[in-house]
Amino acid sequence: MPRVDGRAPDELRPINIQPGYLEFAEGSVLIEAGKTRVVCSASIDESVPRFLRGEGSGWITAEYAMLPRSTHSRTARDRGSGGGRAVEIQRLIGRSMRSIAELDKLGVRTVTLDCDVLQADGGTRTLAITGAYLALYQALLALVRRKALHRVPLRAPVAATSVGLVGGELLLDLCYEEDFRAEADVNVVMAGTGELIEVQGTGEQRPFSREQMGRMLDLADTGIRALFEHQRQAVERLLGS
Amino acid sequence: MPRVDGRAPDELRPINIQPGYLEFAEGSVLIEAGKTRVVCSASIDESVPRFLRGEGSGWITAEYAMLPRSTHSRTARDRGSGGGRAVEIQRLIGRSMRSIAELDKLGVRTVTLDCDVLQADGGTRTLAITGAYLALYQALLALVRRKALHRVPLRAPVAATSVGLVGGELLLDLCYEEDFRAEADVNVVMAGTGELIEVQGTGEQRPFSREQMGRMLDLADTGIRALFEHQRQAVERLLGS
Amino acid sequence: MPRVDGRAPDELRPINIQPGYLEFAEGSVLIEAGKTRVVCSASIDESVPRFLRGEGSGWITAEYAMLPRSTHSRTARDRGSGGGRAVEIQRLIGRSMRSIAELDKLGVRTVTLDCDVLQADGGTRTLAITGAYLALYQALLALVRRKALHRVPLRAPVAATSVGLVGGELLLDLCYEEDFRAEADVNVVMAGTGELIEVQGTGEQRPFSREQMGRMLDLADTGIRALFEHQRQAVERLLGS
Amino acid sequence: MPRVDGRAPDELRPINIQPGYLEFAEGSVLIEAGKTRVVCSASIDESVPRFLRGEGSGWITAEYAMLPRSTHSRTARDRGSGGGRAVEIQRLIGRSMRSIAELDKLGVRTVTLDCDVLQADGGTRTLAITGAYLALYQALLALVRRKALHRVPLRAPVAATSVGLVGGELLLDLCYEEDFRAEADVNVVMAGTGELIEVQGTGEQRPFSREQMGRMLDLADTGIRALFEHQRQAVERLLGS
Amino acid sequence: MPRVDGRAPDELRPINIQPGYLEFAEGSVLIEAGKTRVVCSASIDESVPRFLRGEGSGWITAEYAMLPRSTHSRTARDRGSGGGRAVEIQRLIGRSMRSIAELDKLGVRTVTLDCDVLQADGGTRTLAITGAYLALYQALLALVRRKALHRVPLRAPVAATSVGLVGGELLLDLCYEEDFRAEADVNVVMAGTGELIEVQGTGEQRPFSREQMGRMLDLADTGIRALFEHQRQAVERLLGS
Amino acid sequence: MPRVDGRAPDELRPINIQPGYLEFAEGSVLIEAGKTRVVCSASIDESVPRFLRGEGSGWITAEYAMLPRSTHSRTARDRGSGGGRAVEIQRLIGRSMRSIAELDKLGVRTVTLDCDVLQADGGTRTLAITGAYLALYQALLALVRRKALHRVPLRAPVAATSVGLVGGELLLDLCYEEDFRAEADVNVVMAGTGELIEVQGTGEQRPFSREQMGRMLDLADTGIRALFEHQRQAVERLLGS
Repeated sequence: MPRVDGRAPDELRPINIQPGYLEFAEGSVLIEAGKTRVVCSASIDESVPRFLRGEGSGWITAEYAMLPRSTHSRTARDRGSGGGRAVEIQRLIGRSMRSIAELDKLGVRTVTLDCDVLQADGGTRTLAITGAYLALYQALLALVRRKALHRVPLRAPVAATSVGLVGGELLLDLCYEEDFRAEADVNVVMAGTGELIEVQGTGEQRPFSREQMGRMLDLADTGIRALFEHQRQAVERLLGS
Repeated sequence: MPRVDGRAPDELRPINIQPGYLEFAEGSVLIEAGKTRVVCSASIDESVPRFLRGEGSGWITAEYAMLPRSTHSRTARDRGSGGGRAVEIQRLIGRSMRSIAELDKLGVRTVTLDCDVLQADGGTRTLAITGAYLALYQALLALVRRKALHRVPLRAPVAATSVGLVGGELLLDLCYEEDFRAEADVNVVMAGTGELIEVQGTGEQRPFSREQMGRMLDLADTGIRALFEHQRQAVERLLGS
Repeated sequence: MPRVDGRAPDELRPINIQPGYLEFAEGSVLIEAGKTRVVCSASIDESVPRFLRGEGSGWITAEYAMLPRSTHSRTARDRGSGGGRAVEIQRLIGRSMRSIAELDKLGVRTVTLDCDVLQADGGTRTLAITGAYLALYQALLALVRRKALHRVPLRAPVAATSVGLVGGELLLDLCYEEDFRAEADVNVVMAGTGELIEVQGTGEQRPFSREQMGRMLDLADTGIRALFEHQRQAVERLLGS
Repeated sequence: MPRVDGRAPDELRPINIQPGYLEFAEGSVLIEAGKTRVVCSASIDESVPRFLRGEGSGWITAEYAMLPRSTHSRTARDRGSGGGRAVEIQRLIGRSMRSIAELDKLGVRTVTLDCDVLQADGGTRTLAITGAYLALYQALLALVRRKALHRVPLRAPVAATSVGLVGGELLLDLCYEEDFRAEADVNVVMAGTGELIEVQGTGEQRPFSREQMGRMLDLADTGIRALFEHQRQAVERLLGS
Repeated sequence: MPRVDGRAPDELRPINIQPGYLEFAEGSVLIEAGKTRVVCSASIDESVPRFLRGEGSGWITAEYAMLPRSTHSRTARDRGSGGGRAVEIQRLIGRSMRSIAELDKLGVRTVTLDCDVLQADGGTRTLAITGAYLALYQALLALVRRKALHRVPLRAPVAATSVGLVGGELLLDLCYEEDFRAEADVNVVMAGTGELIEVQGTGEQRPFSREQMGRMLDLADTGIRALFEHQRQAVERLLGS
Repeated sequence: MPRVDGRAPDELRPINIQPGYLEFAEGSVLIEAGKTRVVCSASIDESVPRFLRGEGSGWITAEYAMLPRSTHSRTARDRGSGGGRAVEIQRLIGRSMRSIAELDKLGVRTVTLDCDVLQADGGTRTLAITGAYLALYQALLALVRRKALHRVPLRAPVAATSVGLVGGELLLDLCYEEDFRAEADVNVVMAGTGELIEVQGTGEQRPFSREQMGRMLDLADTGIRALFEHQRQAVERLLGS
């Protein structure tokens, strides 16, 4: 059965990446996967949170939000602490970046990654991770270029995608309609080394087996390797600029 | 003395308008003036606020926010009621649209205009007004096309710009650096009929004379007439689509 | 057609001023215009906001609130950041005072002007400005009297009033009922030098012409000059006390 | 030893009462005891809180706040739920009024008593109670006059004062400086029948004996009986108006 | 008439005390009176609030909360500043402990007493006080044992109970059903010296006489003396541990 | 190398379960694993959230909080929306219960599961899930016993545990000290059918391999099967009561 947007089950949506999208940020990107569209920026602050004072180490944190009309019907703006879902996602983005960063090489600096969803058609959290890596890279590269760092203190790229079990079939990179109908799904964050950074498998509609879990991880692996190639090309453009 | 970006004193920044920028919104636009870049969307809700219940009339309201890294240094996300400045601006946008709308012809509907600043280099509030009109128009046009309204219930277009007194000279459409140095400035919202909708003149650094006020209004008039032409072309694209 | 309270179109409401109304404040006033009644106080704090640290300059800020039962029906107390309207007004009061103050002569001090409306019958924001000037003056005079300042660092008095277009007629100093029915109105803040500090013209019900704008400014000018005379008498009482 | 303001130990401060102080409220009063000055208003709403729906009974509630500059140094405005102290006091005012009201005779109505302190020199909570009774009475009298009630549904007047143990001596109606130095104090709310409504005795600096408690209650009794006489005169003015 | 749980009018509920209930806290207790069950903990912080800085004195503060399902029907969690009732109770707990503590002997330390109600069947505030004393004692004893203090800086134990007038009869230690039906009640906090620390008498349903007040205090006195004996035994267990 | 508390690598901490711990809740349990101690309660409300109105289906939701002194040092009480971590955990608990519940058989009811941590020594979220199942079961059993439901509408039990990679070794059911030092860990929620409900694997300190992921899931499987046996015994006690 063809997918709702005509893709093969193991096919990513078309990816479009515009590095340096925001002129005033140290690092930024506009990243699109099909209709999902996220702006990521990296801001550098020459200080660290209280719990790191005096440690000589840096920190990376993230914020995630959706424009009110990124969705099919309008969602009220996040006020207060941003809503449970947003908090969960921004914690995930922050952890993912920290897992491949050499925080002790970053200096006494905090990088804040803002991921703002302009249009949401599924997969916003994984696309935000894939984009946040590029914004982070650009911001650190700028530090290297003005001699504040010797090299970009990142051990490997990070990218992420989702896989779902929809109508009994495994599908890569779910759009909103597929995500909504999924019996189970898994979000996978992977390092360029092929190792796993985060695996979040959920079977809200129905529990899933170990065997299904394994096949979902296999398919995610394929998709993320393609994303690494897109990231590589974006990094080359940054290096050439 | 040439301006910081080389413009003549009475010259607008280059305008770029992309109507229908957000696929899921009833109306939307990406509007740019130089480096200032705003996304406006119009969302229609088939109900009205409590104070209008039973009146048979519609309502138009607005929200305004800036992405944290739209500015030169990162600004914390607006939480709570959005900060004094944002509240002031969104009240201005809502009033401006209501002043040219035939609310009694709108049906029992609320249009919410979300103006989100992606990049801020001065003039965000006036550009948001100029763009919000287009998002509003597109959303109402969609109601006409699906026969929910007979015609677009707007009496005239609305656009806005700023004029400032900088180093004793009158400048049109201030960028951030000029705005920061202005002795006095005025934001003008005008209807396509040539009448005034809002005039907000402020002399925080120094009071200004009635004569200066008059010359600022004259210059704003010139600029806004050029903006109406940009809006007209965008509307034609919408009508042709 | 006579006005709702019998005044001539160009007549202010009766003004009553009681300087030093609050015994514990550095400066204070109870100011009444017809039924509108506002308490203004000035509090001096020997520090400045973060953005002025190390500048050697002072600061003036304002807060505005209404008692829950100042209005015809009870309004819930302002919690959170005080509501959009209150925020807009207190920003206006602060800007107006700063525009005539010599902040660099104030020393490292912040003056906070609290304007609390006891009874609201239209024109609360302009009356608050007219009163806040007197509270500010008294507080600075006290600094002069205890030799903390050489002279009162204010360049000119500030007062404000409103003018509206009601049923096609220009009216000075609108009461609530007139304000509610106005097609367009303008709030004008003026310095004792005759220069303008703020002009906020709004045509929510209907746009207005440049010519109407001019006549509204003329009428406001007349009214504000009468308010300067009331302020002058109050200052004399303070100087004589 | 004479008191700080020259009073005898068992002497109240001068009381000044201005009923009907706010023109738009159903009931209101400006009440002063020495330098302490409170505005009380009563607002009637033709509905009751959720927990009373369908009971056919009315409700009385209170809110208490201080103007920022009612105190010797400026206090930040109460935001959020109003601060612990304010909450405690408004609960006390509400309970006191309800204890003498015939809520089942009030109809399906809520009376909200707003007590706003303009100037605070000790004893604000007890003065607010003494004043709130008058605002409540006036609001209910208005209901009687427009035939919405047969009679004022209050069983007895309510008034309150404080007594403290200061330097070993019992003092009636403490001003701020005395309150600050008190070893123990008691706030007493009494009904016109001579019965007690609330007794709040506190020995934060030092515990106190049963015998001292008894003498404090005796002295409060004397003071409150004098307050009842002031209330009686104010009520007569209301009845005669 | 026998009481709802079969007790005599002057009989406390069965008391059960488990000192050191929480392993990680400096002091803690699980205290039960009938079905009412409270966990109290004492946490020591080596700093003091701003208003005590440089005074060389310590501070004691308290927080009080109920688990959502401590009550017969679920209560929403306290967010914001904790709700009026909780604020009132935690202020009472803090004052009571400070009244018998030698704050100047405590060193530059703040003790925070957390009283969390697991199950609520009336008398939670008085039981929290009785328990908080034990948590406080254990925490201070630990400071003595590690030589940070010479002796436990408490002048006397503190305990509390309630007495109510229910159906015309005086009852000690009200359970929820009795409390709900009480015409008047008094919460009494007493020091081991027999002196009063707090007396909070309330007649929301009906005012009460001086003579009834006296008899309620007598009965509370009897009950609290029994509580002191329970505390003494718990302290012995702590001293022996 | 022996574990910090002497356990074998594949050994759970001692489990202690006290069903029906709270007398007023429809379902409740006190559950302990070593020093970690959680109270879970289930409250039934005869209504459903807005998004389910008219669907004829029920809902299950959860809240999670820690007592301030459940931890080694005191944590401020959760105010606002409860903090990012708490929100993440309560969403997990709710999803887990819903995945095995027959919501369409529950009737128009919401079950709220409150999980309050009295003492926290690692594994609070997984213990809360294991306990919440029992509180949920007891509450539904009560509905069956009073004939409101035909049978308990749960498809299978749910339990959860954690596995971590600590110093290169796989450990089951991490205590706080082990969790703190873990290179990677996974929380696993499993149904009694042996299927997976949630898998949350995180490698904040270091990415992990697919092979390690597999071995962590194997070890979790073993531990959770032992927890099912503890749950079975607790259910038998409930059935026999």
